[in-house]
Amino acid sequence: MRSSAVPDIVVGRLPLYLRALTQMQAEGKEITSSQELGDQLGISSAQIRKDLSQFGEFGKQGTGYNIAYLTDQLRRILHVDRIWDVVLVGVGDLGRAVANYAGFLHRGFRVVAIYDDAAQKIGKQVGPFQILDAAKLRADIRAKGIKVAMLAVPAAEAQKVADELIAGGIRAILVYAPTSISVPDEVKIGYIDPVLHLQHMTYHIR
Amino acid sequence: MRSSAVPDIVVGRLPLYLRALTQMQAEGKEITSSQELGDQLGISSAQIRKDLSQFGEFGKQGTGYNIAYLTDQLRRILHVDRIWDVVLVGVGDLGRAVANYAGFLHRGFRVVAIYDDAAQKIGKQVGPFQILDAAKLRADIRAKGIKVAMLAVPAAEAQKVADELIAGGIRAILVYAPTSISVPDEVKIGYIDPVLHLQHMTYHIR
Repeated sequence: MRSSAVPDIVVGRLPLYLRALTQMQAEGKEITSSQELGDQLGISSAQIRKDLSQFGEFGKQGTGYNIAYLTDQLRRILHVDRIWDVVLVGVGDLGRAVANYAGFLHRGFRVVAIYDDAAQKIGKQVGPFQILDAAKLRADIRAKGIKVAMLAVPAAEAQKVADELIAGGIRAILVYAPTSISVPDEVKIGYIDPVLHLQHMTYHIR
Repeated sequence: MRSSAVPDIVVGRLPLYLRALTQMQAEGKEITSSQELGDQLGISSAQIRKDLSQFGEFGKQGTGYNIAYLTDQLRRILHVDRIWDVVLVGVGDLGRAVANYAGFLHRGFRVVAIYDDAAQKIGKQVGPFQILDAAKLRADIRAKGIKVAMLAVPAAEAQKVADELIAGGIRAILVYAPTSISVPDEVKIGYIDPVLHLQHMTYHIR
């Protein structure tokens, strides 16, 4: 396992492979090839073989990959062979949709609490959650040992809330606010901003 | 303008630069440097200078970048010096949040119509929109000349709806469903899947 030396761009493709393999498994397939995976993902088969070879030997030349085995291995490598408790901060329209999203649990994540700082929201019910007071955020995540957070607050508040999360022990933050956040090296950060994708695509439309 | 030769990964960073510059402008700043931009984005100043130099000469050595000018140029390069009409298909929790999102218009996009195929949703009001019948999708976008779509339908329906969009003339699709879609070369596709980001981050948490 030379995982510390693996380029981050390679790591970033593993969740894509895991998603495609999980889908194949749900369709009842047992074996796949780097060619088939690549066709589905728009990635070359050579790239897929090279990426996977950084983590071990997962298939034999000519016989392809055992989907169940490779899926298990990728889950282990990505540390989603367990369920991560996640807190969500910011319960506007988007936060509400994220809180109600059914697609986290079978992929390694469970929203366990949702927070907002607006007095008129605190105590309100959203699906299975009661909105908690964001003032308690740091103490709560510290007490529960939570490491992963999603941030759906307005852009202007994102840095302040991120600082609070990090002070409470959060190590990974997925930011839905359209802004960049500064975090220490040991904290990982991911961004969801639909407009970045849209602008990337319109570049190509004449 | 050698834009056809620019690597896609470079193009993908331009919207990030534009977002950061727009934010600086809103804060009243007039001049910035590749160093300052880089610090904010976690990208090296050399990378930023190299990326921008692919599109022209935007700053003078030692004097930095004029923010208003560079912002205008990036908008022009990304083709968001205009407003793109966008259709949204799929009005569940997430589609509803996307339809109500106020952050599109000042960055080049305007949702003009929302569609669903569920009889009990068609005709219902969501913010300023009445949900339209997805059966009319192809004819509507063809008639209106719409080129950009967002897809918030379940994964199992995503390919079918994408095919319909493309048949109607759509050239760019932002997919919120957690699945990969096959599209012809001339159609651009972007994906929003929060779990891909979360799994990428948990890889790094021991």
